[in-house]
Amino acid sequence: MRQFVLVGHEAPTTPEFSLSDLAGGAGRLDVLCRCVNSAFFLSHDLRESVRVHLVLGDEFTVTFEGSDLRRLNPDERSTAALVRGALEEREGAVGAMGVESSPGVTITRRGFDSLVGDLSREADGPVVQLHEDGEPVSDVAPPADPVFVLSDHRDFTGDEAALLDDVADRRVRLGPRALHADHAITVAHHWLDTDCYRSF
Amino acid sequence: MRQFVLVGHEAPTTPEFSLSDLAGGAGRLDVLCRCVNSAFFLSHDLRESVRVHLVLGDEFTVTFEGSDLRRLNPDERSTAALVRGALEEREGAVGAMGVESSPGVTITRRGFDSLVGDLSREADGPVVQLHEDGEPVSDVAPPADPVFVLSDHRDFTGDEAALLDDVADRRVRLGPRALHADHAITVAHHWLDTDCYRSF
Repeated sequence: MRQFVLVGHEAPTTPEFSLSDLAGGAGRLDVLCRCVNSAFFLSHDLRESVRVHLVLGDEFTVTFEGSDLRRLNPDERSTAALVRGALEEREGAVGAMGVESSPGVTITRRGFDSLVGDLSREADGPVVQLHEDGEPVSDVAPPADPVFVLSDHRDFTGDEAALLDDVADRRVRLGPRALHADHAITVAHHWLDTDCYRSF
Repeated sequence: MRQFVLVGHEAPTTPEFSLSDLAGGAGRLDVLCRCVNSAFFLSHDLRESVRVHLVLGDEFTVTFEGSDLRRLNPDERSTAALVRGALEEREGAVGAMGVESSPGVTITRRGFDSLVGDLSREADGPVVQLHEDGEPVSDVAPPADPVFVLSDHRDFTGDEAALLDDVADRRVRLGPRALHADHAITVAHHWLDTDCYRSF
């Protein structure tokens, strides 16, 4: 199981946003939608052993579960519609008790601290922060069952960074250039798929 | 200079398509828009030494020139609007004589054969086909000034594949899993950026 946590700092926490203005009025939800795409899609296939958590405005988490997903398409707009559908069920979400709004899509009332705290206790593998000051990926053996934590178009806040300093087992740099979060997910998958090009 | 050719088999050749239906009525233009994103964007930066050619319905080519781009944003919808703007100028495009519809965005009246023929004669580097039966990327030194040729959600047609057999200097496989075109571009950049993780 590979998990990805994406923090959407300006992402909507109510469903009243336009699917035609994802990069504007919807607080750069387009970034998070591309991350969902990168996490799950292969050519004519979907990675079932992947879970993606979108943290929306530090208030809700929408989780996509690869093995259960049924209505995910690659484009930003349809993924944003799934997020909107989850937000329509937000009143039913109490803490980590979630509401499934669509097959494989669940909303819980958890902000960054709560989610990352839960994952650091419960996940089978290490929490990995992708960071430009981290160890080069070429020096790191691909971990089993990693939980990657990434930010959207904005940096982690001071509080988020402090929490990550506490709970992250590793800090890894994927390459010489700083990447958009969705591209970082693609490269992380490639790293894990190929084991640093050593065999495939 | 890194160049990417993307073949949009069902892509629109007129501007009468809805920006709200990119994955449907606009013939999977969402795929091509994500490819433009992957080719150009870095975190808080844009790769200037990149050129992307979108082949639309084997009739027009819309070229994005990194060093001249001014209005490119990461989301699918705004990139599709640039493509639509280029198609509005299509009547002025005669052969390889293009019309610039927005800074760094030019439309020419060239289909796949014509474009790839031009590139194979004029490009400084090799034409590289990304193909699941190609050489593993781990065995190939990153080429200088490559022209990568990729298809959208559909395979190359028989004619396209035959032309590529003729003109491609290399056939390379990026990894063990077949990827969407936009993810393949991200991995190709990573390969060239890191030189197979040998140094960064």
